[in-house]
Amino acid sequence: MVAYDGTNYCGWQVQPNGITIEEVLNRSLTELLREPVTVTGASRTDSGVHALGNIAVFDSETRIPGEKISYALNQRLPDDIIIRESREVEADFHPRRCVSRKTYCYRILNSRFPIPTERLYSYFVYNPLQEELMAEAASYLIGEHDFKSFCSARSQVIDTTRIIYGIKVERSGEAITIRITGSGFLYNMVRIIAGTLIKVGLGSMQPLRVKEILEKKNRAFAGPKAPAQGLTLEKIEYINKIY
Amino acid sequence: MVAYDGTNYCGWQVQPNGITIEEVLNRSLTELLREPVTVTGASRTDSGVHALGNIAVFDSETRIPGEKISYALNQRLPDDIIIRESREVEADFHPRRCVSRKTYCYRILNSRFPIPTERLYSYFVYNPLQEELMAEAASYLIGEHDFKSFCSARSQVIDTTRIIYGIKVERSGEAITIRITGSGFLYNMVRIIAGTLIKVGLGSMQPLRVKEILEKKNRAFAGPKAPAQGLTLEKIEYINKIY
Repeated sequence: MVAYDGTNYCGWQVQPNGITIEEVLNRSLTELLREPVTVTGASRTDSGVHALGNIAVFDSETRIPGEKISYALNQRLPDDIIIRESREVEADFHPRRCVSRKTYCYRILNSRFPIPTERLYSYFVYNPLQEELMAEAASYLIGEHDFKSFCSARSQVIDTTRIIYGIKVERSGEAITIRITGSGFLYNMVRIIAGTLIKVGLGSMQPLRVKEILEKKNRAFAGPKAPAQGLTLEKIEYINKIY
Repeated sequence: MVAYDGTNYCGWQVQPNGITIEEVLNRSLTELLREPVTVTGASRTDSGVHALGNIAVFDSETRIPGEKISYALNQRLPDDIIIRESREVEADFHPRRCVSRKTYCYRILNSRFPIPTERLYSYFVYNPLQEELMAEAASYLIGEHDFKSFCSARSQVIDTTRIIYGIKVERSGEAITIRITGSGFLYNMVRIIAGTLIKVGLGSMQPLRVKEILEKKNRAFAGPKAPAQGLTLEKIEYINKIY
């Protein structure tokens, strides 16, 4: 289980344009275990997105016990990536294919002025947001739906049906958090949901419109994609496998 | 009134070894107003310390109304420094000499593992802290005292008497905050108080010891100085002057 500050990374997945979380893990594990290691991540978070509990697995011949790897690896990792826990898993465990519930949190700073220490971990919205309207709009998304309208048009996924188990919109002072738990999420889905709920919170969209947007099955009807830095993958729970 | 993320600065005060908040403000104001500008800050925060509401004043011949300067200046400032508000003040207003109350907040992350997105804004303490003991210890510091024991030995200040109006130790989940309001603070005073309260919270110092430490008037008896990144100057209120 890995936590990271995504600010300085080009997301999870290895890519030619810049350093990624996956790449740092592969390199550090390869050095530590002295064998080529390639991790498989549960959630391939975007550039600038953070995680408290992403999951990565890898094969290894090492004799180091699974529980000890986190300590040894943390010595080698930069301070914006931390292994919270490590353990041996069954050989057939695949972090994306096994059934899971993921929880993401989107954080908004809704204040009169931006706070510099919040800039990398929340989206600053100046105009007052009505969180009750956002909560009402969010309630229409709960359940099993075709979320095609809330998926990046670039995505090539065919089955766009997902289950949202719950969405909570909460205000604590000037911070508003949108916490979503679901069976899985389409590309940019949480950020498009956040962007749509913000439109509702600003009063420029009726909460009930969200229901219609779902029915349209067309990305063009939903709100804009909210920026990456507000998003954190909080946890992944595996249903059948005890990870 | 200026807010900043102190992570990338060598503190407030201009110095030869690296870039400072004061230097960035001087440079940006000089460019904006097209005359040499030198700001005077209320609190010369250390390297890595953050602020939500530091105060800086400067003299200028400009015709730009005081309230408009914040907007123009924010266009020029990097995104880790923000002017929350600007206005014209009386000519005799001096942000350090005028009587004020300052509020600092020290933030501790007391959890099983460090959280990467918190690393620049809190001090990570692994062992469980008992916040009730910390609150009891803090209560002995309230009032007018000679805080010599809680002042960096390097300081050359002669009068080490200050008034602490209040200290609140609060836990919210894994975050513990120590919020201190006082008439002024000696060099490193808040960080030494935080370091001492952490020792109490860990159970390695009795709360009542804090009373004795005050009486010793010797830096050697207090706890260690807690690291800079947990500290934020929250606000400064001027008592006589309406700033």
